[in-house]
Amino acid sequence: MHYFSSDFKLGILGGGQLGKMLLYETRKWDIQTKVLDSSEEAPCKIACDKFVLGSLLDFDIVYNFGKDVDVLTIEIENVNIDALEKLEDEGIKVYPQPRALRIIQNKATQKLFYTDNEIPTSPFTRFAYTSEIKDSITNGGLSFPFVWKSAQFGYDGQGVKVVKKIEDLENLPNVECIAEDMVNFKNELAVIVSKSASGEVKTYPVVEMEFHPEANQVEYVICPARIEEHIAQKAQEVALKVAEHINLVGLLAVELFQTQEDQILVNEVAPRPHNSGHYSIEASYTNQFEQHIRAILDLPLGKTESKVAGVMVNLVGAEGYTGDVVYENITEILGLEGVTPHIYGKKQTRPFRKMGHVTIVDEDMGRAREVAQEVKEKIKVISK
Amino acid sequence: MHYFSSDFKLGILGGGQLGKMLLYETRKWDIQTKVLDSSEEAPCKIACDKFVLGSLLDFDIVYNFGKDVDVLTIEIENVNIDALEKLEDEGIKVYPQPRALRIIQNKATQKLFYTDNEIPTSPFTRFAYTSEIKDSITNGGLSFPFVWKSAQFGYDGQGVKVVKKIEDLENLPNVECIAEDMVNFKNELAVIVSKSASGEVKTYPVVEMEFHPEANQVEYVICPARIEEHIAQKAQEVALKVAEHINLVGLLAVELFQTQEDQILVNEVAPRPHNSGHYSIEASYTNQFEQHIRAILDLPLGKTESKVAGVMVNLVGAEGYTGDVVYENITEILGLEGVTPHIYGKKQTRPFRKMGHVTIVDEDMGRAREVAQEVKEKIKVISK
Repeated sequence: MHYFSSDFKLGILGGGQLGKMLLYETRKWDIQTKVLDSSEEAPCKIACDKFVLGSLLDFDIVYNFGKDVDVLTIEIENVNIDALEKLEDEGIKVYPQPRALRIIQNKATQKLFYTDNEIPTSPFTRFAYTSEIKDSITNGGLSFPFVWKSAQFGYDGQGVKVVKKIEDLENLPNVECIAEDMVNFKNELAVIVSKSASGEVKTYPVVEMEFHPEANQVEYVICPARIEEHIAQKAQEVALKVAEHINLVGLLAVELFQTQEDQILVNEVAPRPHNSGHYSIEASYTNQFEQHIRAILDLPLGKTESKVAGVMVNLVGAEGYTGDVVYENITEILGLEGVTPHIYGKKQTRPFRKMGHVTIVDEDMGRAREVAQEVKEKIKVISK
Repeated sequence: MHYFSSDFKLGILGGGQLGKMLLYETRKWDIQTKVLDSSEEAPCKIACDKFVLGSLLDFDIVYNFGKDVDVLTIEIENVNIDALEKLEDEGIKVYPQPRALRIIQNKATQKLFYTDNEIPTSPFTRFAYTSEIKDSITNGGLSFPFVWKSAQFGYDGQGVKVVKKIEDLENLPNVECIAEDMVNFKNELAVIVSKSASGEVKTYPVVEMEFHPEANQVEYVICPARIEEHIAQKAQEVALKVAEHINLVGLLAVELFQTQEDQILVNEVAPRPHNSGHYSIEASYTNQFEQHIRAILDLPLGKTESKVAGVMVNLVGAEGYTGDVVYENITEILGLEGVTPHIYGKKQTRPFRKMGHVTIVDEDMGRAREVAQEVKEKIKVISK
C-alpha cells in the first residue's frame, strides 16, 4: 500500500488540537486526510484535504463520513461507536478499534475492566445516577472524601469533582457516575504505549505530571519522570499490561498514580495522542503524533527515546477572562532558551480552556524545569 | 503587535516545499497566512489561510497580492522585485528587503558585490551573452575548465554547467552569464545566518555538503561539519561578513568552499530557508523555518545549537522515471532508527526533481552518517 502522495485517504474524527498536531505529520508525509468536527472554527479546518462539518455523536454523520476512507482514526474518544462498528464490519480499518473505545468511553466500564483483568486501580463504586450517592453515604456505604466522575463525556476536567462534603454533590449532573477513593499519591505518572496493526509495541519513557488543583488539568509534564528506576519499570509494566488487555492499534496513554507505598495504580487511559505526550514533539526522536500515524498505517514504529529533557506547560485560559484571546508576554518567553509555544488556534478564551502549550527542552532537566517555571509565571492567556 | 490567533496577516511569495515547511510554523503559532504561487498543485495550497494563483514575476499580481498583508516574505528569490519595492515604499514590511534581493537575484551582481566588499570568492568573468564566451576563449581571455552560470533564474542546478571543452557550450541558453574558475575544494560548507528586524543576529553551526555530480544538487548535508574548529570559525566569520554587508532581515544561507589551502571562499547565498538547513527540523533547538518567522516578526531569535547530530539526504527523482511518484522502500527506511522522511507533495516525479528529503539524527555522528548511507541506497523515487 502506498500512503505517500497517493490516493490513500485517512479519516480523522475530531478537529481539535490533537487533530491539528496529527495533521503536521500527514502533511509531512503528504498523506490525504478528511476531518469531521462539529465546529466551523475547528483548529483542523485548514491543513486537512477535506473538512466535514457535523456531530461526532451522530450515527449517520459518522457512518457516511467514514464510508469512503481507507483508515479511520480519532483524536477524541467521544464519538458514535455504533457507526464505527458498522464501518468496521464493512471492511474499513478503524483504529483504535470500536471494541476498545467501548471499554474506555464509559469510565464505569473502564474501571470494571481493570478489576476484571487484575490491573491495579483505586477502589470505586458505580452509580446509575448521582442522586443515588447520597443514600449510599447515609447508609455508610461511602465516606468522604471521594472523587465523583461522570461515566461518560468527561473531558479536560469536566465531569470530575472532588467531593469532601455533602454540599459538593449539589449542582452535579444526575447521570451515570462513579465514586472513586481519593488516592494519597506521591506522583502522578503517565506512559504512552504504541502498537502497530501488525503487533509491534513500543512504549515512551515514564513522564511525571503535575495538575492544577481547581481545573484538574495538567500544569507540568516532565520527561523523564524524576523517580527511581524500579518505580519507572513498574509503571512501564503496568502500562504494558493495560495495553495488552485493551489490545488496540494506535496509541494508549496510561495515567498512573504512584502511592505513598510505591504501589502503581491505573487512574485512567486515553486511546489516542495525549496531553502527556506533547513534550515529544521537541524532545523525542519520534513524536507521539508521528508514532500514531506509523501505528495505524502499520509502518515500523519510531524510536521513543528522548534527545533531550522536556517539560511541557499547558496554556489554559486565565480565570476572569472570556473573549478574543491574547497571549500576554509570549514574546518574553520566546526569549528564553529552548522554549517552543504551540498555539491551538482557538479564537475565544475562557477560564481553564486549553488554548495551547509550551514545551521547554534542555540537555539538563534541572534547567528545563527552571525555565518552565519562568514560562508559567510570565505567560498569561487573557482576552482583549 | 499580536501575531498569535490575531488579525495579523503574513504574505508568502512562493508555495513550494520551503513555503510548506514554513507553514508548519505559522500553524504552530496560529499566524494567518496568504500564499502566492503559479501552480494549482503547489505544496502550500493547503495549510495556508488563503491561496492565490498567479505568477511571482508579474508586477501587478505581486503588488496586488502584497497590498493587504502586514509582513511580506519569500520562499524563492525569483520574484518581481519592482513590485516589492513599491510595496515597501507604501509601508508594507518586506523581509528580506528588495534591495538585498536585487543583489542576490542576479549572480553577476552577486559576484560583483563580493569583490566590491572584499569578500573572498572565486575569480569570474561576466558576459552579456553566452555567445561572447567563445571569443573570450579564442582570445585567451578564458581557459578550460570553468563553471558557466546563467545570471538569472538558476534553481536546483538549472542554469549551472561545468564547461571542460568548447562543445559543452552548445545548447546553453544565450543569456547574461558568468564564467567562474573551478575551485579545487576540500569541502563544500554552508552557514545559515539569521537576523531579526531589530538587529539580533544568530548563526547556525557550519554544515558540510556533498553534491550529486550530474544534477549539481545536494546529496548529503552533515551537521556539524566534520572539520577542524579553526576552519569552522573562519567559515562563520566569512558568513557573518557577507550577512553584515547584505544586511537583510530573515535568513541568509551562505554556501562556502574550503580550498585545498584552507581558504574559505563564498560560492553563493540564498536569502531564505535553505536546503542546507533542513536537518534543523529534527536536530536543532530552533529549526530554520521557525527562526525565519521569529526574525521577520521581530521576535527573539531561537537557540541555533543542535540537540543531536543530523544528516540530511535529498530525495530527487531517479533518472529514467517521469510520472506519478512512488517512494520505493520508504517503509524499509522508516524501520531504521532516527529516520524522518519529508515528502513535499509533488504528484509528478522527473529526473533530479526535488521530491522530498530524509533527516537522520543520532547522538553519534558516525552512526547517523552510516544510517544515511543506508537510506540513500535503499530509497528510490520512481514512477508508477
